[in-house]
Amino acid sequence: MTEVRVRGAFATVRGPGIEAEVAVEEPLEIRVDGAPIAVTMRTPGEDEELALGFLHGEGLIDGPRAAGPSADLAGNVVEVAGPLLREPGTRSFYATSSCGVCGKGALEEVAVHAERLPAGPVLDRALLAALPERLRQPAFERTGGLHATGLFTPEGEALLVREDVGRHNAMDKVIGRALLDGRLPLHGHVLCVSGRLSFELVQKAAVAGAPVLVGVGAPSSLAVRLADDRNMTLAGFARGGRANVYTGAERVR
Amino acid sequence: MTEVRVRGAFATVRGPGIEAEVAVEEPLEIRVDGAPIAVTMRTPGEDEELALGFLHGEGLIDGPRAAGPSADLAGNVVEVAGPLLREPGTRSFYATSSCGVCGKGALEEVAVHAERLPAGPVLDRALLAALPERLRQPAFERTGGLHATGLFTPEGEALLVREDVGRHNAMDKVIGRALLDGRLPLHGHVLCVSGRLSFELVQKAAVAGAPVLVGVGAPSSLAVRLADDRNMTLAGFARGGRANVYTGAERVR
Repeated sequence: MTEVRVRGAFATVRGPGIEAEVAVEEPLEIRVDGAPIAVTMRTPGEDEELALGFLHGEGLIDGPRAAGPSADLAGNVVEVAGPLLREPGTRSFYATSSCGVCGKGALEEVAVHAERLPAGPVLDRALLAALPERLRQPAFERTGGLHATGLFTPEGEALLVREDVGRHNAMDKVIGRALLDGRLPLHGHVLCVSGRLSFELVQKAAVAGAPVLVGVGAPSSLAVRLADDRNMTLAGFARGGRANVYTGAERVR
Repeated sequence: MTEVRVRGAFATVRGPGIEAEVAVEEPLEIRVDGAPIAVTMRTPGEDEELALGFLHGEGLIDGPRAAGPSADLAGNVVEVAGPLLREPGTRSFYATSSCGVCGKGALEEVAVHAERLPAGPVLDRALLAALPERLRQPAFERTGGLHATGLFTPEGEALLVREDVGRHNAMDKVIGRALLDGRLPLHGHVLCVSGRLSFELVQKAAVAGAPVLVGVGAPSSLAVRLADDRNMTLAGFARGGRANVYTGAERVR
């Protein structure tokens, strides 16, 4: 029998032969005008930012919305005021309209919500490679269990860092906060993530208008394609002072 | 302009200053009796196994089903023969029936589809700590971009290893293959994953009847709770000859 005691974003685990601190993971239901839209497994905290960032990445909102705990105070529910820009559908169009070889349907769907990014900013490669180290991750250091996303200036100043057990959630929280702060679109900004670069992370960054996305890990094929299609700079394996620049090399000197 | 050329599970990326190999990520639509059930971003290959493993983990099937490419040969669609055990609902019940502090609704939902696991097997801690090294990952070594899941005997023999850009997909592929091979429930077997231990990975392992789940990374709070609730042995940070055993320590000597 192992006991798990939750305090905010952390939990203490005690059992035979084990005493450890772990990151908290709990379901969050996102409702819009009372209707459930999505459930995500997330680390509690900044739930409103997470909800708004998620809805923005899906192309469902394009500006701030009132958001807060549910009226009946049910745990792990965040209520967002509508209306949405469109009906929240499933993502099945990805596959049905997709080219089996290149994921064309998925790219086209993102293009609806994300304009091609304008030129600039230009970054030093060394700075870009050093950004992951500036993702201050106090919670990760405690638990080893969290992903981080950071929003940076082109000079490498961290404006926002958010952590979560889910890598998509960490980015949603950053974009949700930026939306509330009136920073969108993120032209002239840089996003940096602590992990790999999936299609969905590039999608969220593109819809938020971020021209540069840096990751510690590897990109996928569709992540590279989408970044190239939207004129985004995508850099991976940013560690040890080096980085691979897969697309948009003109923003790196 | 960066060119991405896909060949099977790999793609070659060529652009200004870059030539690299990356893992392929493409959408897969899972249909049952023609109706779309889910879309997942996955690495192509073993799509039938992925679909069956996914449906099993959701408690929608409990035995093998005929599965294959769609009749109209649309790319990235896998068709599975029904019927399902229940209507595929949303997961919103997680939150609405959930205790805000402990994720109780989510645990109860899994309990419907996953019996408490029986005693055994018993493993040496050193063997358990060494399992991640036995996740042979030829594709990961090429791209750095793939997660792996392996099915092992208690003696540490690898029976199955699958890789995917999505960590859930890698486990779905293993469980789908095991389902087709008549190996379920996985009593007496060990599952090992190359990353962190989320609630959903423990859920899939529990529904498949695997009594031991080992990961290279950290578990979340709800992963530990679920493993404890279902009498599963959960070990994390399995690296460098060591491992933390969070639950079910009686299976580790």
